[in-house]
Amino acid sequence: MQEKQQIAVVGASGYTGADLVRLAVRHPHIEIAALTASSHAGKSLDTVFPHLANLNLPLLCRNDEVDWSTIDVAFCGLPHATSQQVIRELPDHVKVIDISADFRLRDPSLYEATYGSPHSAIELQQQAVYGLTEHYRSEIAVSRLVACPGCYPTAVLTLLLPLVSNGLIDPTDLIIDAKSGLTGAGRGLRQNTLFAESGEGMCAYAVAQHRHAPEIEQELSIAAGQQLTVNFTPHLIPMSRGELVTCYARLTPGNDAADCVRALADRYQDESFVNLSPDGVIPHTQHVRGSNSVSINAYADRIPGRVIMIGALDNLVKGSSGQALQNFNVMFGYDETTGLQQIALFP
Amino acid sequence: MQEKQQIAVVGASGYTGADLVRLAVRHPHIEIAALTASSHAGKSLDTVFPHLANLNLPLLCRNDEVDWSTIDVAFCGLPHATSQQVIRELPDHVKVIDISADFRLRDPSLYEATYGSPHSAIELQQQAVYGLTEHYRSEIAVSRLVACPGCYPTAVLTLLLPLVSNGLIDPTDLIIDAKSGLTGAGRGLRQNTLFAESGEGMCAYAVAQHRHAPEIEQELSIAAGQQLTVNFTPHLIPMSRGELVTCYARLTPGNDAADCVRALADRYQDESFVNLSPDGVIPHTQHVRGSNSVSINAYADRIPGRVIMIGALDNLVKGSSGQALQNFNVMFGYDETTGLQQIALFP
Amino acid sequence: MQEKQQIAVVGASGYTGADLVRLAVRHPHIEIAALTASSHAGKSLDTVFPHLANLNLPLLCRNDEVDWSTIDVAFCGLPHATSQQVIRELPDHVKVIDISADFRLRDPSLYEATYGSPHSAIELQQQAVYGLTEHYRSEIAVSRLVACPGCYPTAVLTLLLPLVSNGLIDPTDLIIDAKSGLTGAGRGLRQNTLFAESGEGMCAYAVAQHRHAPEIEQELSIAAGQQLTVNFTPHLIPMSRGELVTCYARLTPGNDAADCVRALADRYQDESFVNLSPDGVIPHTQHVRGSNSVSINAYADRIPGRVIMIGALDNLVKGSSGQALQNFNVMFGYDETTGLQQIALFP
Amino acid sequence: MQEKQQIAVVGASGYTGADLVRLAVRHPHIEIAALTASSHAGKSLDTVFPHLANLNLPLLCRNDEVDWSTIDVAFCGLPHATSQQVIRELPDHVKVIDISADFRLRDPSLYEATYGSPHSAIELQQQAVYGLTEHYRSEIAVSRLVACPGCYPTAVLTLLLPLVSNGLIDPTDLIIDAKSGLTGAGRGLRQNTLFAESGEGMCAYAVAQHRHAPEIEQELSIAAGQQLTVNFTPHLIPMSRGELVTCYARLTPGNDAADCVRALADRYQDESFVNLSPDGVIPHTQHVRGSNSVSINAYADRIPGRVIMIGALDNLVKGSSGQALQNFNVMFGYDETTGLQQIALFP
Repeated sequence: MQEKQQIAVVGASGYTGADLVRLAVRHPHIEIAALTASSHAGKSLDTVFPHLANLNLPLLCRNDEVDWSTIDVAFCGLPHATSQQVIRELPDHVKVIDISADFRLRDPSLYEATYGSPHSAIELQQQAVYGLTEHYRSEIAVSRLVACPGCYPTAVLTLLLPLVSNGLIDPTDLIIDAKSGLTGAGRGLRQNTLFAESGEGMCAYAVAQHRHAPEIEQELSIAAGQQLTVNFTPHLIPMSRGELVTCYARLTPGNDAADCVRALADRYQDESFVNLSPDGVIPHTQHVRGSNSVSINAYADRIPGRVIMIGALDNLVKGSSGQALQNFNVMFGYDETTGLQQIALFP
Repeated sequence: MQEKQQIAVVGASGYTGADLVRLAVRHPHIEIAALTASSHAGKSLDTVFPHLANLNLPLLCRNDEVDWSTIDVAFCGLPHATSQQVIRELPDHVKVIDISADFRLRDPSLYEATYGSPHSAIELQQQAVYGLTEHYRSEIAVSRLVACPGCYPTAVLTLLLPLVSNGLIDPTDLIIDAKSGLTGAGRGLRQNTLFAESGEGMCAYAVAQHRHAPEIEQELSIAAGQQLTVNFTPHLIPMSRGELVTCYARLTPGNDAADCVRALADRYQDESFVNLSPDGVIPHTQHVRGSNSVSINAYADRIPGRVIMIGALDNLVKGSSGQALQNFNVMFGYDETTGLQQIALFP
Repeated sequence: MQEKQQIAVVGASGYTGADLVRLAVRHPHIEIAALTASSHAGKSLDTVFPHLANLNLPLLCRNDEVDWSTIDVAFCGLPHATSQQVIRELPDHVKVIDISADFRLRDPSLYEATYGSPHSAIELQQQAVYGLTEHYRSEIAVSRLVACPGCYPTAVLTLLLPLVSNGLIDPTDLIIDAKSGLTGAGRGLRQNTLFAESGEGMCAYAVAQHRHAPEIEQELSIAAGQQLTVNFTPHLIPMSRGELVTCYARLTPGNDAADCVRALADRYQDESFVNLSPDGVIPHTQHVRGSNSVSINAYADRIPGRVIMIGALDNLVKGSSGQALQNFNVMFGYDETTGLQQIALFP
Repeated sequence: MQEKQQIAVVGASGYTGADLVRLAVRHPHIEIAALTASSHAGKSLDTVFPHLANLNLPLLCRNDEVDWSTIDVAFCGLPHATSQQVIRELPDHVKVIDISADFRLRDPSLYEATYGSPHSAIELQQQAVYGLTEHYRSEIAVSRLVACPGCYPTAVLTLLLPLVSNGLIDPTDLIIDAKSGLTGAGRGLRQNTLFAESGEGMCAYAVAQHRHAPEIEQELSIAAGQQLTVNFTPHLIPMSRGELVTCYARLTPGNDAADCVRALADRYQDESFVNLSPDGVIPHTQHVRGSNSVSINAYADRIPGRVIMIGALDNLVKGSSGQALQNFNVMFGYDETTGLQQIALFP
């Protein structure tokens, strides 16, 4: 009998909650002890997500119905603002892996400016570790509260951090053209995410105003050793899962695109979930769908002295629930790939 | 160290081959010892399927380059006609799980009429067991050669066999309206499977002439104890994976739709991969995508005395490679769900 | 200067309203004098539908703000129940082309049973003509109130009426398997019409309970001279526009599928908008998208003595706004194709 | 009876040919006198494009079967290289509107470098006018040979030319992130344009190597008065029609995004087919699908001193056949919107 951690999935009725359950239910060191979803309390999860039927899961309940004394770790998939209120009430012995945006930004005033209300758990925020696993592994291992990155920041930072850290690219005018499928918009009802409005069409959205930009800037600024502002322009693409980021930068003198490829290869050679796309293959979201992998690469631009960097991931897996479980593995000392070895579903 | 069977995937460059590799690579009792694909011999599989990179797989080779003395079982994903030629040359100790159409039809003249050329391995065909696991489990367990059903027949027979066997529906004028995503058409280049021709549109195809109809009729005829002809009308739907069959039948006197639901529930209560859809949920392909499950149910028609039966599956998993692995588990005495417990990827 | 009718589009903020405006704005005998949409009164239409910008249209207003004395005809795209309340208040000189369901059913008790509340304009309902143009042309020409058929009934009746009328098929157990894109579900916010829930997947819905079934039964019963019940099973398909109906029937003695093809060809030989699909081509929704055409054909079944009939149309054009304009042309004596000659947008 | 020009559509079996026919058939000053498609000579067009049935069109024929003495203008939708060979043989009285790439590049050595073989009609190329209607209208009006721009260049140049010409943006490191639906790839059979390979996924392609880049650079260089190289990175998006370009530039000192918006508004205020997106609406391909319009706008970047410019069009209409007809109208002195007033098909 393998050791199992008792987990609570807080906010199980959204897409990230559902994808977490999908993976956690097959994780050898996890026992799903509680599933919360206030508005559906008392129902079984398959009334909300029929694909999660027949899994012997606990009924959905309210957060205050959970016997927290038995819980080892809480995964929080709540909306921002709500998340911090729930997490600050949890007993100290409960480790927390937050998938919301609430503990990603280190600066409370930036949080308030970005999310529109003051942070109500600033002390906790100081303790939170940014959960980009490949870059904060040792801090995650000893933390109580991990703030999993947004889906876009995961793709962008995986691609850009090594190049900015190594000084290969000029960080002062990075252009990030990002494209996401519709699950990135969540399960809430909005006109622009109806099939009829978003199918067979595409557009940019939240131009220059997306909430993931400050998060990207925070981490790139640390790597660059200077305060940065970046372009970040997301687009809505008619597909369900998948995210692609195409980044454009000026190379620093003496470097070329091949240096960038080499830096990425070196940085991630021992990583299980970050891979350079195979020779001749440009990163494609279909090649990572349903898996915890990021596919990355870099290319020389037509403009001399510039480089194009591309990354693809599944926003609900490596961009959310998969990375949350990867952090769980790190926090509890399991092999980091445990429960995350699903190969991409292609086509 | 767990016991492992050495497998060869013959015809690894098609979608069924790729999906078999995706699942087999994570199967605890499988070692992929050979991958064949004549036209790509010498290359690595990720040149053909980039999502299968970094898996330490053998290079693609020709069938005659495989050291068959080391192989326990061959999974054949070749086109029909080619499949029989390759399989008849395999040494006797190699068990065979054929995903092609070559050994599904028991009557050689029906095979010839359906596939346009005489069968060249009639003796082998006599020995083949039809690989609809839930209905031929004991025969599969002791067979050398299993002929996995077509994707459509898997959905249709799972739904209709119990009802025909129990005499609940009149089998003489069954109407089967079937809908499939584009992977059902394979990876070959054809104008009507281009995105531009098949996206944002739908149509019926092969009306009254699809090759899966004789296979369905063969098995339903056995269940009915009389020679049947059925309507089978497939449609091409703008999605990649997934198959839905909507079947229409007249109830036999004294029975109603609830009897059909009960008969299905009873028949499959101990089965891991066949499930009635949850209360109030009509079978949906999104609820089974990427999984080995079939979701089924039955409903009263507006026309008194008639019943509507619906089934959904993933054509590349339960409709092909997943069922092939399920049969592998049965043939080698492993738990039937081994390596097949992936939950559906929703959304 | 050509003669122009002053029209009011009542309920201009839904998909049918928008598609009506798209076509009406280019109609040589139409002047759009009023556009109503209560919840958007005071705004311009392009705030609701940006593709309708730069067309010099009147602002959206409430129904009671329209100067009805100047209006020749009202097109109503309101929800059912609301539609009848608005229409009964219109002055007598205003002709009415209703795209809602309110005046389609001749029997008030059937209306109440189907739509859940009693009809509040029964007298008007008696005067209404069912607006299936090819079958009620002469009545439409002299009517004040035309009730345009539902999208599904338009496809089904176009296909089946000639065959039932001529006694070629047995009308007592007609099976109608219908498939629709997402615009058929309207612009209202519902979880199952989100892209993430409906893309890359399909399912049946409203099995045996869809509100278009009584409408189909009403018209087929008249043609058959007996009270009929039909199977009608709609499915949601991941595409925006387009509807396909696949119908299954038993032939009456002495007839075959070729007789059905001939009957359809004969019946519609002088019609501009109903066409047999070209030789060797099965009706495809892409071939009619954006146009007012229905593409139809019939095929022999595998089961002797049975026939398969297929029809495709654009649910927002011939299935709704296009047919409404076709009826306008008939009512005002213009050439029936005026303003409706757009060829399908393929791909 | 209106005056009609006799046109030949050369290369009518591709998507651009079909869309040209779709529009030309309803153009009041066009008579389609000949349709050529060598490999389909003798067939009717509806055998290749069933949506073009019932239009009384001439049969497809070979180029040498056309009686050119009766033809006023040839629209050429042939592949590059073939196009020049056909066009140079046409009699002088035939005006030519070429939709291929053959006459777009002014510099023969650039043509050869880009398209891989020397140009075989260099003299003709010197006479060709670049057919971006809004920018070369007066030259087009008096030319015999118009080289219609590529789909991407049409979107990019419409957006960037006014800003580069006015010196509002620094033209030396323009970043152009372009996204196209699958019809942009044509009707040829390629694995990556199969639905199963391109649906529910996205990727960049031809990174830094797309053939439309030199064309964009040629025209922007003229506007800038210096030789430019630009970034141009196209992506394949899972939809059929539609193209979106997101461009990134550094503003020149003293200018901001509002200046760019004003410059675009001023430049195109009298144009029928170029429109700023309505207030609060970001250009969306659904808003222009099937129409000849380009929707454009500009936005302030997060990075001070930078601007984001976005444009959307239908690649088969304004990006190809629609613009070809617009040029026809200019060449023959008709109102420029004649036959091109179709409003976008939304949704």
